Amino acid sequence: MKPTEQLLNDILDEVRPLIGKGKVADYIPALAEVPANKLGIAVCYNDGEIIQAGDSEEGFSIQSISKALSLTLAMTLYQPEEIWQRVGKEPSGHAFNSMIQLELENGIPRNPFINAGALVVSDLLHSRLSAPQYRMLELVRKLAQNPHICYDKVVAASEMQHSDRNASIAYLMRSFGNFDNEVMPVLTNYFSYCALKMSCVDLAKTFSYLANKGLPLGAKKTIITQTQCKQMNALLATCGLYDGAGEFAYRVGMPGKSGVGGGIIAIVPGEMTIAVWSPELDPSGNSLAGTAALELLAERIGRSIF
Amino acid sequence: MKPTEQLLNDILDEVRPLIGKGKVADYIPALAEVPANKLGIAVCYNDGEIIQAGDSEEGFSIQSISKALSLTLAMTLYQPEEIWQRVGKEPSGHAFNSMIQLELENGIPRNPFINAGALVVSDLLHSRLSAPQYRMLELVRKLAQNPHICYDKVVAASEMQHSDRNASIAYLMRSFGNFDNEVMPVLTNYFSYCALKMSCVDLAKTFSYLANKGLPLGAKKTIITQTQCKQMNALLATCGLYDGAGEFAYRVGMPGKSGVGGGIIAIVPGEMTIAVWSPELDPSGNSLAGTAALELLAERIGRSIF
Amino acid sequence: MKPTEQLLNDILDEVRPLIGKGKVADYIPALAEVPANKLGIAVCYNDGEIIQAGDSEEGFSIQSISKALSLTLAMTLYQPEEIWQRVGKEPSGHAFNSMIQLELENGIPRNPFINAGALVVSDLLHSRLSAPQYRMLELVRKLAQNPHICYDKVVAASEMQHSDRNASIAYLMRSFGNFDNEVMPVLTNYFSYCALKMSCVDLAKTFSYLANKGLPLGAKKTIITQTQCKQMNALLATCGLYDGAGEFAYRVGMPGKSGVGGGIIAIVPGEMTIAVWSPELDPSGNSLAGTAALELLAERIGRSIF
Amino acid sequence: MKPTEQLLNDILDEVRPLIGKGKVADYIPALAEVPANKLGIAVCYNDGEIIQAGDSEEGFSIQSISKALSLTLAMTLYQPEEIWQRVGKEPSGHAFNSMIQLELENGIPRNPFINAGALVVSDLLHSRLSAPQYRMLELVRKLAQNPHICYDKVVAASEMQHSDRNASIAYLMRSFGNFDNEVMPVLTNYFSYCALKMSCVDLAKTFSYLANKGLPLGAKKTIITQTQCKQMNALLATCGLYDGAGEFAYRVGMPGKSGVGGGIIAIVPGEMTIAVWSPELDPSGNSLAGTAALELLAERIGRSIF
Repeated sequence: MKPTEQLLNDILDEVRPLIGKGKVADYIPALAEVPANKLGIAVCYNDGEIIQAGDSEEGFSIQSISKALSLTLAMTLYQPEEIWQRVGKEPSGHAFNSMIQLELENGIPRNPFINAGALVVSDLLHSRLSAPQYRMLELVRKLAQNPHICYDKVVAASEMQHSDRNASIAYLMRSFGNFDNEVMPVLTNYFSYCALKMSCVDLAKTFSYLANKGLPLGAKKTIITQTQCKQMNALLATCGLYDGAGEFAYRVGMPGKSGVGGGIIAIVPGEMTIAVWSPELDPSGNSLAGTAALELLAERIGRSIF
Repeated sequence: MKPTEQLLNDILDEVRPLIGKGKVADYIPALAEVPANKLGIAVCYNDGEIIQAGDSEEGFSIQSISKALSLTLAMTLYQPEEIWQRVGKEPSGHAFNSMIQLELENGIPRNPFINAGALVVSDLLHSRLSAPQYRMLELVRKLAQNPHICYDKVVAASEMQHSDRNASIAYLMRSFGNFDNEVMPVLTNYFSYCALKMSCVDLAKTFSYLANKGLPLGAKKTIITQTQCKQMNALLATCGLYDGAGEFAYRVGMPGKSGVGGGIIAIVPGEMTIAVWSPELDPSGNSLAGTAALELLAERIGRSIF
Repeated sequence: MKPTEQLLNDILDEVRPLIGKGKVADYIPALAEVPANKLGIAVCYNDGEIIQAGDSEEGFSIQSISKALSLTLAMTLYQPEEIWQRVGKEPSGHAFNSMIQLELENGIPRNPFINAGALVVSDLLHSRLSAPQYRMLELVRKLAQNPHICYDKVVAASEMQHSDRNASIAYLMRSFGNFDNEVMPVLTNYFSYCALKMSCVDLAKTFSYLANKGLPLGAKKTIITQTQCKQMNALLATCGLYDGAGEFAYRVGMPGKSGVGGGIIAIVPGEMTIAVWSPELDPSGNSLAGTAALELLAERIGRSIF
Repeated sequence: MKPTEQLLNDILDEVRPLIGKGKVADYIPALAEVPANKLGIAVCYNDGEIIQAGDSEEGFSIQSISKALSLTLAMTLYQPEEIWQRVGKEPSGHAFNSMIQLELENGIPRNPFINAGALVVSDLLHSRLSAPQYRMLELVRKLAQNPHICYDKVVAASEMQHSDRNASIAYLMRSFGNFDNEVMPVLTNYFSYCALKMSCVDLAKTFSYLANKGLPLGAKKTIITQTQCKQMNALLATCGLYDGAGEFAYRVGMPGKSGVGGGIIAIVPGEMTIAVWSPELDPSGNSLAGTAALELLAERIGRSIF
């Protein structure tokens, strides 16, 4: 069954009562100020049709959702072994910013979607691109077919002011020889990617290539190969939801990626891409109402990769 | 594309050179004695058609593959919350028998497919079944449509003689109030399940219900609901391959479960169930040649959940 | 300056207000029932003179203080290398019953005064003594010059009923090949040692040999050599107070050993042995008022090994 | 018994065969180049008498021995609670540069003698001194009665080039709010302290105050109080030898502090201070032959705090 706007509105109404039961990310002021009652959803079909409801066109900080974009960009620049010798492909079983495992495993992050892994990917981009921030923005605007997408400079600056933990992670990897560039410039880029301001519609369109064998919306050429597309979805399914990937697979049954800004994208391979937004998070750091909305949607339209 | 016997034979020939590069499990003599050059594969279509190659009818110790059967049986006996308050749904990020996380997380195992989790499931079965070993055997024989399936008593006895680590795990959970029965009788049952002796054909038929919305081969009634079937596949995809689930998803792209006896089952939802066997293991404890065979098969027939 | 009975009484009065600010051990009923306001102290000079105050003749469960006795007994039965290849000499930096370090360090406990280490020592005694419980009782009665000292059978039985955590620890070491006997009989002995019921006077007399170069009170022959005596004091100073050894050295400045029954013994080498008792514990598991009393005493009589 | 020059020479001859069985610190080139066969010892009596042997007047990098000096300086500038709310007093049970415990314990280092703890102490000095490097040098020259003591700038610069791990530690503490200043300037000071170049004679004289109730050699006024002196010795005894403090107490029986330059100082309270130097280290990072020399000396002169 194909979702209608009515169905999306119904789902948002059903999950709205969850608002107030989670917690908006507050480690930086710029995120803490986002109104908790924002709620939006957008579905982008592989043919480009968009169905949407709620605050689906309002931009928000995509945060860790950008980690999937960085990895995609790195996949276009590096051979697989160049990436996978520096970062693993396994779920971490720890909080997204924990350093315990990183020390025990000699500075090789478990996967590209925890902070340490995404910092390694940013380090890779930094080594091979002369202007990685510019290149990322160009990529996202093209994928989303929206030239107005920007970095939220207030968020990026605020992140940089609270960057001690990520600096610690980067220096630890550097001490193990798994970080090539100066730490601070890479952190600056990393936080910019996180500070991309995009709407649910932007996100659903942007990640359409993951539902369409690597082919971006409206494009004639794939951005990554079909095999890479499957690999990316596999990584999202096992590692994309912080330490809540198992629960997300159990309840929603789609590859996905979340961010502490309250956004989540989910992929129905071969068919559609979904983006939801609700700022309050569950204890794992995933959008509480957003996950619930995806669970209902998956059930109502009878979609699951399992 | 549908696999032919020829294709399966070709795949086995291609992966055979890997034999000698892994390591047969040797923590108990009964497993160490299995010839390293055994290699078999079987595919069971949802309509009952079997395609097979190599040592596909020779029985071997299914070991941890039994953890998927125990959980299935528990799902038929308990309400979801009764199970999931005692065991989690997240990948562990640690070795299958590690106790570190178990202590830090107060005796709640990460998922039902690491040893600690499977022991909790065995404890659940022990509490509600008068003869859990008998019931399990009955279930497996019915699912596999093979009344000759037996426990390998030599393997089970050997496991019991080397049970200190698992006893330690069970007592730790008991100290946290997450283990209800006496430890030794539950261990005895647990090791029996692991000592089920089955062939690739047996396994492919047995797990057919996971590819068919909960409906066992030749049955008229589902053993678990369609929703439970999806949930089981989600758990297998994120946690079924020890600390190699991410790599397996990346390379094979199917929900699966491995055992240290060298067997692996993999599910193509809606279509077929696959079982492979090659005793030598990779460092994560998954069959080395078996994983490679599944990777080739997935690629050749163009199947992946991603 | 030599402590007088008056000084001891003054000190007890000064620390009495701490009662109510700690927590009586309650993991077994038999300990939880001990009145929290018990408070006693005894000093035994190397010449046998006893000075005492408060509830100094009332017996209590010595608990982990027995770990120093077990090690002493093991030192008389084994060559040093036989002991120290199975247990380390370093502070653990973890709670007394943590298993994390034990797993990471392959079943070799950090020191003989955490539970794991004391269980290894009990295993050593079990291997070489036909009746270790009897032998321990005989030793303690002789050292304390008190033939009425007994095991508290209610406490021992209660410990055995709550022994899951220690069983887990023992089985883990057994899985690493660092435990030779059956677990349960060793646990039974271990809990009996912990359940020794002794008074402050008993304890001060018993441990007099540690202040007197290995020579027990009233004895003509040392029980351990002068070198072993120094080694034992060194181990007590670095590892004797659970995860509070540094704080104890900082505040009290004497080798010591505590038990969750609220007792602490402390050694002034060459001069005297002190025993205090107050059941309420601080977060590290050491007697709150007992530590304070030792701190005051050390200061008033101007004694410290530093 | 008082050590003679002859005795010290005999001891050096006895331990010389150990040279070749340890490993010179090689994490920075400046340390790796130090000849492995250097061996020196100096004893400084509280009355100022010096007895010495071997390379006792040759300067070497004191490295972590400086951590005892930083703490002493901090003790003169801060109230005890200002220090001890930011750093603990317990042995760590982990390697000197491990971050695992630091993360689990919310950025509060276990003690002032592991890297994290010494960095907090350096941060404290940085907050209250306008020129901490200058003040430290002034202090050391005065304590050692040697105006020629200098920082080895090659060593300090080399440390700074390999500072990633310590930067990671500092940033982690900063993320927990336990580091007040900018990381890099504090690191620069910290490495300078480590790069103090001093001889055994310098060190024995410098630390004389710890054997003499806080009174430096030739001084009329104590630098720290008698109580602080005892506390410092207590901290050295439990935490001064990295993860080998228990073994050092067991074998040598004196408070001490080691550095990866191969130096160790040891205190006989009320009597003398000893300094040894031999660059090769044992696996814990303590001088191999140096520890052996101290063990022999303690035995021959019959000194031990136990």
